[in-house]
Amino acid sequence: MSANEFAVIRELFAPHAKSDAARALIDDAAVLETQGKLVVTSDSIVEGVHFLPTDPIETVAMKALRVNVSDIVAKGARPKAAMLNLIWSDTRPSSEIATFAEAFGRDLKFFGVDLVGGDTTSTPGPLTISITLFGEPLGQRVPSRADAQPGEDVWLIGGEIGSAWLGLQLRKGEIDLKRLRQGRDELQAMSDSRGLAREMPDYLKLPNEDFDAEAGWLMTAYLAPFVRPECAAIVSKFASASMDVSDGLAADAEKLAAASNVALLIEINAVPFSIPAERWAFTGGDVRKLITGGDDYVVLFTAPAELRGAIEAAEGSQALRLARIGKVEVGVGVLFANARGEPIPIPEAGYSHKLGR
Amino acid sequence: MSANEFAVIRELFAPHAKSDAARALIDDAAVLETQGKLVVTSDSIVEGVHFLPTDPIETVAMKALRVNVSDIVAKGARPKAAMLNLIWSDTRPSSEIATFAEAFGRDLKFFGVDLVGGDTTSTPGPLTISITLFGEPLGQRVPSRADAQPGEDVWLIGGEIGSAWLGLQLRKGEIDLKRLRQGRDELQAMSDSRGLAREMPDYLKLPNEDFDAEAGWLMTAYLAPFVRPECAAIVSKFASASMDVSDGLAADAEKLAAASNVALLIEINAVPFSIPAERWAFTGGDVRKLITGGDDYVVLFTAPAELRGAIEAAEGSQALRLARIGKVEVGVGVLFANARGEPIPIPEAGYSHKLGR
Repeated sequence: MSANEFAVIRELFAPHAKSDAARALIDDAAVLETQGKLVVTSDSIVEGVHFLPTDPIETVAMKALRVNVSDIVAKGARPKAAMLNLIWSDTRPSSEIATFAEAFGRDLKFFGVDLVGGDTTSTPGPLTISITLFGEPLGQRVPSRADAQPGEDVWLIGGEIGSAWLGLQLRKGEIDLKRLRQGRDELQAMSDSRGLAREMPDYLKLPNEDFDAEAGWLMTAYLAPFVRPECAAIVSKFASASMDVSDGLAADAEKLAAASNVALLIEINAVPFSIPAERWAFTGGDVRKLITGGDDYVVLFTAPAELRGAIEAAEGSQALRLARIGKVEVGVGVLFANARGEPIPIPEAGYSHKLGR
Repeated sequence: MSANEFAVIRELFAPHAKSDAARALIDDAAVLETQGKLVVTSDSIVEGVHFLPTDPIETVAMKALRVNVSDIVAKGARPKAAMLNLIWSDTRPSSEIATFAEAFGRDLKFFGVDLVGGDTTSTPGPLTISITLFGEPLGQRVPSRADAQPGEDVWLIGGEIGSAWLGLQLRKGEIDLKRLRQGRDELQAMSDSRGLAREMPDYLKLPNEDFDAEAGWLMTAYLAPFVRPECAAIVSKFASASMDVSDGLAADAEKLAAASNVALLIEINAVPFSIPAERWAFTGGDVRKLITGGDDYVVLFTAPAELRGAIEAAEGSQALRLARIGKVEVGVGVLFANARGEPIPIPEAGYSHKLGR
């Protein structure tokens, strides 16, 4: 049975909108009280484009929020308030809306975000969720993409590259599950020829008893990206330029380089991959897929080389999978290199939406 | 040929994003500098739900912005900055995006709004546009829906009721165009029985030489609602409670009454209709359709009776089609009455989206 939009707002979403700004979701607008800078981002996710029709509705709710949280965190800010535009598909059971709202409410709470307003409507098309998220900068400066300087270090923080892409392939059944199950010495040569060019570490050679857990982790990385708001403190304190990695490391590094008018030299072996992703790469997978796949939702930033020690010593940086992956140089574009310093050409520039026919 | 999202942003939208806050649309987030209150609203429009697939793409762009401007104006605020989420249908030619962007840019300029950010993505479904709009309150108070008091007057300002609904019917070919062409004395009795209950004024009896212009005006009211930002000054200065009328006067008055915990008594003859809408009602159309039809985008507000003279004398109020349409009373719900004070039952409560199946 279809649900009435006003009842949905009153019964399912208003309980997550407790701040004064939200006006209990009965008004046409929210009223934010702010002093100084407010960081604002707005991202939409569409069924069939950003998530699969069969993805659980709970993780769809989480992903819709988190792709926006990721942008706010990458600007060194604390997420505070959200506007939700829920554009519900006529073909989905209305009973799922309650499940969506509950999961969304849980995630709001987890990230300390107030729901302050939005819109609820129907569509004859796919489920579409558009969120605008407000954040409070932790410092005076809100780093842009455009402030990287030659000589700086290039850093990643917040998680692993490529796991979400592998998780998506697993969900789509497009990679061989067995390949993740075993590491084989005889594939070392193959991986060498694919540009990884280092010794396969022992931990990858072990038979993997925990395949299901690892596959689950990869799928989770795709379904509900594990965005870590703690990254904001380090970004705010140290970053010259920063952005979140959402369209693939290769493509997003290109954007930062272009905006800053510099070149980035990235050592691929310094990029943090998950154990199953490394095993996949060592056993025949093309490592370049991991850096062009997208959906990583970690933070890419640059910082002066003299801050290197302070950044590595910053509280929580190791738990946040901090990794120094390269250098900013004079020039144009992004160059990936292997451990021998040999360039690894990246065939595709990462995910870009093609619009229209 | 499909278009690349980054090229679209850079070439078509960045020219409309000149403020510092926008960071030239190359960053992941906008940075607003604000002091005090910020009014925020977010509304989406969906092809096939809020506009017809055959509506001109220029007016779709205008409508997407204006439904949000209407919310800001109704809160007594000046629209300032917008985030645009453009979710472009795979089935639409990408060449239309430039036309959309140009019309959107013109309308931003008209309303004095900076584009500060957003998202551009594709959808296999219908064209969907989600906008978040920021406004600066003109006064200290931002009137909510919940502050109407018994004894106050009920006002409309900003335009006519029912024209947009009639325009939609014209576009859909669902009303008899001939009916708008002539006013006939013999239909007076019919209109009486339908609750309008007043003498047909002479101006409605005249044959309408200007039918095409009138039909065009009605269609324009539907396609690109004529939202008047000047209303904000009067709302800010005088309104106790206010909201925009978008889902139909009957339904939105119900919402204001419910939020304020009062009853509204509205005299239907005091409601401002356009000349063609009045003629339609007098010649057999059901006047109740005009007040439940929706898409009006005018402002409904209440104010203390002692302010009546000041409101009527306020600069611009007559040009803004100010109309005192009723009274706030103790009680529940909305009662429409004709000139004889007889109640006019409203069969349907206005437009509400049914969500899901």
